[in-house]
Amino acid sequence: MTPLAALTEGASFITVPVPLGDRAYDILVGRGLIETAGTRIARLGARAAAIVTDEHVGPLYAGLLAGALEAQGLRTSVVTLPPGEATKSYASLERVCDAVLAAKIERGDLVVALGGGVIGDLAGFAAAVARRGVRFVQVPTTLLSQVDSSVGGKTGINSRHGKNLVGAFHQPSLVLADTALLDTLPVREMRAGYAEVAKYGLIDDERFFSWCEANWQGVFAGGPERDEAVAQSCRAKAAVVVRDEHENGDRALLNLGHTFGHALERITAYDSARLVHGEGVAIGLALAFRFSAALGLCPPSDAERVEAHLSAAGLPTRLAHVPGGCGTVDDLLDAMAQDKKVKGGALTFILARGIGQSFIAPGIEADKVRSFLDSELDPSRS
Amino acid sequence: MTPLAALTEGASFITVPVPLGDRAYDILVGRGLIETAGTRIARLGARAAAIVTDEHVGPLYAGLLAGALEAQGLRTSVVTLPPGEATKSYASLERVCDAVLAAKIERGDLVVALGGGVIGDLAGFAAAVARRGVRFVQVPTTLLSQVDSSVGGKTGINSRHGKNLVGAFHQPSLVLADTALLDTLPVREMRAGYAEVAKYGLIDDERFFSWCEANWQGVFAGGPERDEAVAQSCRAKAAVVVRDEHENGDRALLNLGHTFGHALERITAYDSARLVHGEGVAIGLALAFRFSAALGLCPPSDAERVEAHLSAAGLPTRLAHVPGGCGTVDDLLDAMAQDKKVKGGALTFILARGIGQSFIAPGIEADKVRSFLDSELDPSRS
Repeated sequence: MTPLAALTEGASFITVPVPLGDRAYDILVGRGLIETAGTRIARLGARAAAIVTDEHVGPLYAGLLAGALEAQGLRTSVVTLPPGEATKSYASLERVCDAVLAAKIERGDLVVALGGGVIGDLAGFAAAVARRGVRFVQVPTTLLSQVDSSVGGKTGINSRHGKNLVGAFHQPSLVLADTALLDTLPVREMRAGYAEVAKYGLIDDERFFSWCEANWQGVFAGGPERDEAVAQSCRAKAAVVVRDEHENGDRALLNLGHTFGHALERITAYDSARLVHGEGVAIGLALAFRFSAALGLCPPSDAERVEAHLSAAGLPTRLAHVPGGCGTVDDLLDAMAQDKKVKGGALTFILARGIGQSFIAPGIEADKVRSFLDSELDPSRS
Repeated sequence: MTPLAALTEGASFITVPVPLGDRAYDILVGRGLIETAGTRIARLGARAAAIVTDEHVGPLYAGLLAGALEAQGLRTSVVTLPPGEATKSYASLERVCDAVLAAKIERGDLVVALGGGVIGDLAGFAAAVARRGVRFVQVPTTLLSQVDSSVGGKTGINSRHGKNLVGAFHQPSLVLADTALLDTLPVREMRAGYAEVAKYGLIDDERFFSWCEANWQGVFAGGPERDEAVAQSCRAKAAVVVRDEHENGDRALLNLGHTFGHALERITAYDSARLVHGEGVAIGLALAFRFSAALGLCPPSDAERVEAHLSAAGLPTRLAHVPGGCGTVDDLLDAMAQDKKVKGGALTFILARGIGQSFIAPGIEADKVRSFLDSELDPSRS
């Protein structure tokens, strides 16, 4: 992977193709892309676009985007939802579908998701089911959504039984990841997204993880390293998704750090004041490597290297870092058992033999998880 | 097409394969199939099944079906919804998804739809989106659902903007069409389903339409003709669906009679006391042939033959047959314009050059539709 040379604002960008046959699409990554969104989206040949956004992002960019689309002759409407995870609800799904149908979006037209992961997941799901499927475009506005939720076609809402338990696989027609939009992102959100960036190195690309160790400050600062990190993350995720679009096999590797991470999110009641997804993933990544080391699968030095890098980037890496605590071992085990990556009742983990050497480990025995978590909760370690 | 010889209850049945690649499945048609449903469904290899039914069908068959599944070692649960079109709602979708998730249905498990089209469409949609897709089995209990909604993978709910405007394409893993269940169906529901049976002959199979003219009493009476009519309807629909699973082309032929029919359902506010779907389709079929004749596309004698057969089977064939009336020409045109088979603003009709010679006619001019409807509403004709 060669770091990109000079990126001029709006003039240059990286294209990451996602070759999914008749569902193939491009992810464009670069600074200032939103300013050219009108012509790029108009090339898809739609007559109308329903923009879905939230109350944080909408006031900043929805007018700009709508104007750019209208200048290209697209009939445009905007539906604005409250920000936050609670928006991934049945009620919001109904609201967005109704708005899409009221805007007379036909099968060749577009839903445009302008926002972070919540908006992308919700708008994508609405696009998947309105008229049994209309096309959609993602304009992700957070680092997390640029490197994760906007790639791969997973859409959905939350259920009272858990996150993302109701949804569809629906690939976008185009993703515009404007990295300049991240300049105003709170640093906590940058860090949370960065946990997913680092994850791609940890899964199967030790070179990218080393690059991250050397270049992470540039990613945060908004230099060309940011574009390269976003593009490389999208390439990595796209490669996995192309191998396994519907998560019957390899795609589970993308859940490295997520079995623990989701459990922590559940225990903290999805209260973003305590823990956001990326922070849960950071702790989960560190735990997955320490668990792998504890099982004798992975050198302890690799687990230490993972923790050191995530800590350097300002991310939490230990159960004790969860504000308000994370309950008992039983609480954690219960929360993990509710994860949807359960098959035949056995817990599946993503473990690693080293940095860049992760693998799917089904049927991990509960007593091994328990004794590992006991040691992690031991106050002498935290 | 050879009418089937002797069908012994529960011992013999017709298999209609639906060859959709990795989404291929079989439709079994015959008397007494529900009694062997346990072993047939168990062969799909699931550990659990969530049965979705309504308050009419559930008390008759849900216990029988659940017992048969439990006897095969499947963990079984039942969720029962109110009967009627109003059940195809967002609220019901949430209720069924919650029940499916509460029953810990995993990706290899099953949702079983036990009921008519409403239950099939709703349960199929819930199966499509719960955990982003679990398998489902259809046990259709009405003639309409056996010949129409259980074949082809269209699932969905209604929106305030129209019927079936929110949904998914999700193919079942197995369909069990037990024709003995129709013995207790009210005659009005039999007739309504029969409109769709006759439709398959009208689309592209003049021989089947002639067979219907000769054998329709046997279909109603429950002889082997019923099984043959259901099987042949499923074969006909399956052939179209295999050519065009996602309705980008030929599948629209299945909407013969439906542009008018849906408009009449909308005008009668989906009040089943006034008009049920199949009755709207019957009038729509007669109108489509008379409109084709008025445009000089089809011999008037074919339009008369369509009307004569539908009338013989007790079905309505004229706008004047709609109880409470169907409004003005403008009401009808407005209702048609809201149909989701709109592309680029122009009305698309399915017209015919004769019985068994239907075709997709996009861009039909409104003034031709208007003058045809004017003549149909002329009281001297009704």
